[in-house]
Amino acid sequence: MQRIVLAARPQGEPTDDCFRLETADLPEPGEGEILVETAYMSLDPYMRGRMDDVKSYAAPVQIGDTMEAGAIGRVIKSNSPDFKEGDYAVGRFGWADHGVQPAKHCYKWDPAMGSPSLALGVLGMPGFTAWSGITAYGKLKAGETLVVGAATGPVGSMVGQLAKQAGLRVVGVAGGAEKCRMAVETFGFDACIDHRGKDAKAMREALRAECPDGIDVYFENVGGPTLGGVLPLMNLYGRIIVCGMIAWYNGQDDETAALPLGKFWRQILVNRLTVQGLLQTDHVKRMPEFFAEVGPKVASGEIAYVEDVAEGLENAPAAFRALLKGGNTGKMVVKLHG
Amino acid sequence: MQRIVLAARPQGEPTDDCFRLETADLPEPGEGEILVETAYMSLDPYMRGRMDDVKSYAAPVQIGDTMEAGAIGRVIKSNSPDFKEGDYAVGRFGWADHGVQPAKHCYKWDPAMGSPSLALGVLGMPGFTAWSGITAYGKLKAGETLVVGAATGPVGSMVGQLAKQAGLRVVGVAGGAEKCRMAVETFGFDACIDHRGKDAKAMREALRAECPDGIDVYFENVGGPTLGGVLPLMNLYGRIIVCGMIAWYNGQDDETAALPLGKFWRQILVNRLTVQGLLQTDHVKRMPEFFAEVGPKVASGEIAYVEDVAEGLENAPAAFRALLKGGNTGKMVVKLHG
Repeated sequence: MQRIVLAARPQGEPTDDCFRLETADLPEPGEGEILVETAYMSLDPYMRGRMDDVKSYAAPVQIGDTMEAGAIGRVIKSNSPDFKEGDYAVGRFGWADHGVQPAKHCYKWDPAMGSPSLALGVLGMPGFTAWSGITAYGKLKAGETLVVGAATGPVGSMVGQLAKQAGLRVVGVAGGAEKCRMAVETFGFDACIDHRGKDAKAMREALRAECPDGIDVYFENVGGPTLGGVLPLMNLYGRIIVCGMIAWYNGQDDETAALPLGKFWRQILVNRLTVQGLLQTDHVKRMPEFFAEVGPKVASGEIAYVEDVAEGLENAPAAFRALLKGGNTGKMVVKLHG
Repeated sequence: MQRIVLAARPQGEPTDDCFRLETADLPEPGEGEILVETAYMSLDPYMRGRMDDVKSYAAPVQIGDTMEAGAIGRVIKSNSPDFKEGDYAVGRFGWADHGVQPAKHCYKWDPAMGSPSLALGVLGMPGFTAWSGITAYGKLKAGETLVVGAATGPVGSMVGQLAKQAGLRVVGVAGGAEKCRMAVETFGFDACIDHRGKDAKAMREALRAECPDGIDVYFENVGGPTLGGVLPLMNLYGRIIVCGMIAWYNGQDDETAALPLGKFWRQILVNRLTVQGLLQTDHVKRMPEFFAEVGPKVASGEIAYVEDVAEGLENAPAAFRALLKGGNTGKMVVKLHG
């Protein structure tokens, strides 16, 4: 089997030196475990955080360990009654073309739902992140305005589509004209602002123009100047769902990161904002509800999705680096034995 | 009648020049209005915000206008069926020894509840602020730890007592040994930290010692170094209720005010914090519930309170300045015709 391990911790942007492709013996599943041949593995911004040796919601990856990733694979050996050979299993198999996990940490993918790659995107962790955050904390009301960054990504595009279906005005933020076009044409956003070359002030101007009634819900997955532009436009009783901050993952500083907390604090008070941290694992019991509600909408095309597929494990580091710079347009996956 | 008007906007700390005592004719109540002879008027930190010409949850006081305040007075003329002469009315009669308000903006005080001054403190806006915030957003669980600043003030002392009664460990922050002693002895806090001379780092050390299991709920009414000390100690799923920030009202800057938002954002995400702005007026429909629940506890002594009484309208500015510097120990009121 092949796997990619963390070779060195990045200083800022990860470089090639941070990753090492290794060959290893196929592992043997223990009692209650399954071995899969990975079909697709997922690349997600949160993985950048795991490369740093700091406290987060999960422990950092250690030097020499396989990089972490969600993946979907076909079971080739099962020591669990919950899976039989040939089943698709979704689990944390890492950056590798095979993997072993306890069956109880995995769930089965129904191939009738569509391509196994969907289990990593629109019907996987990113889609569920968007859905769980919006349904638990969004308190969406028709006629309100929602803003979300990384608008064509798998989280942002789901957030925007759910909000549109709830009757909100939806304004996206994305990098480049092509993504902005896609947000509007493919995902049905009312507008999408290109953040390239815009500081927080320019973002504010652009957002003000597209959000004439202010912003009621901000789904935060980018941070940086987008956040700086959003904050002054938040309405009374506004909700901010903090899901990620890709603009800051490589440690960049900017004027928004330096926004004094005291000013923000005052705004929370004056507008009685709710700011809520979101991690999808807190909501995992609601996954059946998610599949029941969103699965048919994906099948019918009522909810659109876009995938970027890289081919082969050896191309994962470059695809990941591109992802962190916004080089992807949709959900980034790596095809292994798809 | 006598009243105090805003003579000039303060630059930082308010000075004597900012206030002017005026004599005026007794106003005549119009249709649906009542005229009261003020018994007590309230002094509260939020009034500092109204002196600045900036957007807040209420419009600023204009130069030459009577300073705003909640007050309680005896009705001496009523053009409303809701009040008769001799009734006590609670309303926004301002810094003045008489006042006129529409009856529908006032409510009646039952003298059986105790001294009319209580209507401005433990059974008034500050007590209700604490109760409404804690009951709506606190999600208190026995065994958790709550921290609140201005611990002997009318908001902080109510927050702490409610949390103690819910089975939490309660740690206060206050200025000076005397207030800290009072927080523990009078209000039953488990501990109280003197913030004098402590920067955010020293506050963190002191808080860490008193909160060995971290902080689950922070009721924010001070800002400044206390906030800086609290943030790194917030636990998973912690709640921060933002009610005020007296340390910043005079425009002081400090290291906490300058804390980069990006760092705080990361903490919200990692610990899935909830940060919620609180203004008691959003909860005003629940006042009957508050009186029913807390009134008897005040009467029985189960909930303690401390009042600081200044005598005479002419002493209101000095008392207000002292309040902003923490010169009070309990709820600050001005006795007029009490």
